[in-house]
Amino acid sequence: MRVERTEMTIYPIILAGGRGTRLWPLSRADKPKQFLPMQDGGRSLFQATVGRHDGVEGVAAPWIVCGVADRFQVSDGLASIGVANATIILEPVSRNTAPAIAAAAEAIARQDPDAILLVLPSDHLIAPDAAYFETLKSAVAAARNGFMVTFGVQPTHPETGYGYVKAADGSACGDSRVRPVERFVEKPPLEEAVRMAADGAFYWNAGFFAFRASDVLAELAETAPDVAEAARRSVDEARAEGDAIVLDAAAYAAAPDISIDYALFERAKRVAVAPITCRWSDVGSWRAYWETLDKDDAGNAVRGKGLAVDTRDSLIVSDQADVVALGLEGIAVIAARDAVLVCPLDKAQEVKSVVAALKAGRRFELLDQSPTVNRPWGGFSSIMNGERFQVKHLFVAPGKRLSLQKHHHRAEHWVVVRGTAAVTVDEEVRTLTENQSTYIPLGAVHRLANPGKIMLEVIEVQTGSYLGEDDIVRFQDEWGRA
Amino acid sequence: MRVERTEMTIYPIILAGGRGTRLWPLSRADKPKQFLPMQDGGRSLFQATVGRHDGVEGVAAPWIVCGVADRFQVSDGLASIGVANATIILEPVSRNTAPAIAAAAEAIARQDPDAILLVLPSDHLIAPDAAYFETLKSAVAAARNGFMVTFGVQPTHPETGYGYVKAADGSACGDSRVRPVERFVEKPPLEEAVRMAADGAFYWNAGFFAFRASDVLAELAETAPDVAEAARRSVDEARAEGDAIVLDAAAYAAAPDISIDYALFERAKRVAVAPITCRWSDVGSWRAYWETLDKDDAGNAVRGKGLAVDTRDSLIVSDQADVVALGLEGIAVIAARDAVLVCPLDKAQEVKSVVAALKAGRRFELLDQSPTVNRPWGGFSSIMNGERFQVKHLFVAPGKRLSLQKHHHRAEHWVVVRGTAAVTVDEEVRTLTENQSTYIPLGAVHRLANPGKIMLEVIEVQTGSYLGEDDIVRFQDEWGRA
Repeated sequence: MRVERTEMTIYPIILAGGRGTRLWPLSRADKPKQFLPMQDGGRSLFQATVGRHDGVEGVAAPWIVCGVADRFQVSDGLASIGVANATIILEPVSRNTAPAIAAAAEAIARQDPDAILLVLPSDHLIAPDAAYFETLKSAVAAARNGFMVTFGVQPTHPETGYGYVKAADGSACGDSRVRPVERFVEKPPLEEAVRMAADGAFYWNAGFFAFRASDVLAELAETAPDVAEAARRSVDEARAEGDAIVLDAAAYAAAPDISIDYALFERAKRVAVAPITCRWSDVGSWRAYWETLDKDDAGNAVRGKGLAVDTRDSLIVSDQADVVALGLEGIAVIAARDAVLVCPLDKAQEVKSVVAALKAGRRFELLDQSPTVNRPWGGFSSIMNGERFQVKHLFVAPGKRLSLQKHHHRAEHWVVVRGTAAVTVDEEVRTLTENQSTYIPLGAVHRLANPGKIMLEVIEVQTGSYLGEDDIVRFQDEWGRA
Repeated sequence: MRVERTEMTIYPIILAGGRGTRLWPLSRADKPKQFLPMQDGGRSLFQATVGRHDGVEGVAAPWIVCGVADRFQVSDGLASIGVANATIILEPVSRNTAPAIAAAAEAIARQDPDAILLVLPSDHLIAPDAAYFETLKSAVAAARNGFMVTFGVQPTHPETGYGYVKAADGSACGDSRVRPVERFVEKPPLEEAVRMAADGAFYWNAGFFAFRASDVLAELAETAPDVAEAARRSVDEARAEGDAIVLDAAAYAAAPDISIDYALFERAKRVAVAPITCRWSDVGSWRAYWETLDKDDAGNAVRGKGLAVDTRDSLIVSDQADVVALGLEGIAVIAARDAVLVCPLDKAQEVKSVVAALKAGRRFELLDQSPTVNRPWGGFSSIMNGERFQVKHLFVAPGKRLSLQKHHHRAEHWVVVRGTAAVTVDEEVRTLTENQSTYIPLGAVHRLANPGKIMLEVIEVQTGSYLGEDDIVRFQDEWGRA
């Protein structure tokens, strides 16, 4: 455990392991919602979450919990916003929120049992205002008083897709900002949602939490002992890998797939709710995303390349093709390079049925992999797939290099279109600059590196009878993939 | 004039100079509707029109009238359906149907004044049945009797976008299939359209015609003498260019921009209508195209890559991206590589307002050039546009070669991904096969040729500060472009 004990006491734990498909075709298995550049300035919700408490007094460096596959987009996402002091905990298998939170609590409690944990989903939108930070202070005070605090959002409409929490009279922190919880209500039928939305004491359960590390572990030992035990053992046996902590696979896999709501909040004794009044969204559908965006006078939101003609209350998201919406009302048009979704915003929650249909049709290429794939060294976009060839646009960050590798079934042509490349082919190392090219014969051991100070861009033409990403033998790799 | 006099007497004249934009984003200035691969088997409406009277007794080889810019897609379109005996008349400037028909009539009449001309728009869909060919025979008989014959379609609904023609009693040919015309009605208001559609004596003016060459010229000399004169002089001064006849530019430009309907039919004395009962469409909008297609049980038509989920009465056309329609009703989604149109089928005629908006925004790249450009030697698709580079997929037909050329502002890398290339760079000629590449330095005189028997495919990476198609100096060209 390389992270040192600090004097600060609020530890943001950012849960970045989610795999939501409700924002298909932009969200894919390899790039879930939290990593999409959906915010202003091309930031992701993950990056916005990491930055949300930046500079707040008493807040320590963030801890990130994510899957092994997301390790590099997490570290790249942190690096590109200048966050160098985060701790990354890798889940060797995917579990639900209770095991993820318990493992982070276990790791932090061993350094600082009195640590206050602020658990944040990485894929929600929150626009904090001054009142938010006041509420946060009160929530931390309640956590110091031994409460498990969940944050609540004043309902704006009778939403049937969220859980609700009812506040009791009294205070959990000495002021009225945090109140004890009377009860939780699961996703309600519409009539009940209407009643609760009008009641005043009910809040949407916003999915983020505060509690003391030692308290949550003690509470979980009572309410969900198998979760607490799996977390403890997976941290006991954890190993460092590069800049990350990998939980022990066997120990972590023993944890049940259970949410923190079920495992803890609905069973714990001292539970409180801290209502927030700032803008909040779970961005759980294209409609929810549309609601978070600024719109023109006709109610249209356009991200990327789009033109709305005689169109109202619609959403266009496109980074490649120019999308023209003509005469539409309440329609989402989401265009990725390889897939376009068109649906009424009111049916946006049905995207799951599209994903199911694509799965049934074995269209995994549209579900698993984004047209642009990020790698620890940069990434690539697939720009053309031919019968026995494909063309990729590679981008390699300054100072980075790909693994030393070879392929059994394909040869590669590289044309440098920007920056400078150091290219190894078998025994030879050459420097290529813009407008120079080289050839990697089938079977040759090769490596592409960017020794320069600007992004290296390469057009790669692959030829061969099999062009899958899995035709790769790695000999050396910066990231332990060899 | 290389075409010899034949014993056959029916000359199809195919008008292929139209520039319709109503099927944007697939139709572009460089690829109007008639050349899009919209029919089964990837045929174009132009090709379907050329093939429509194939093998009919008495029908001569077709004559095509088109703009100079469309010459190669016309000749390629003919070649790819095995038509080698067509005559191509090139309009040096774009005029309307009256000058185009008059010029063709003039050219044919000089070989065969008794020729019966069958004038066909190249961008309409007709599914001829046995009755069609019987009607055609009667129309030819009426033309031999000196009538100007227009074909009519029994209205299926009160269409306000078409002109109507009212049949009188009697016969123009000895049977009831062709009747004299009582009058023409321009695009009517709805009430009048309703009345006419129910009347029984009114037909939609289908836009194709039959008449004797000498008759139409004599009639035009009366009804539109400037058209007749311009046609006569432009044929007098015409010159052969390769396999085509180029009308004299100055003479042809003197013709007024007038349709054959106004110049001839509404003014002529002996006019008849031949009603056809087979399937007919002017394919004048995405809605009209949808109507021509086979649909699934929910009324959806999918061309290319599309998936309709919980969707009714909709149209998906896409050749690159997978389009998913979810929960739609009556919507068209038309996806080209660089542009996607989404609109209700009922508003498909408003695509012209989109084209106007794109023009106003100077988005000429979305209006003028298709993502795939056809050239006499094959063509290319633009697959990526970077800041100082672009990537193209070139395809060169067997035996064809590009011009000998050089560029002032760009260098090119060629990677052969299919077939065999003969590459000239300055003094050197090399043969490249699949998986070989070469480099064309800026300023080098070069040529790409396909000496083989299968299509040559090349990935071209261009680098340079200016990458426009007009940076080209041609030294030799098979098609007179040097």
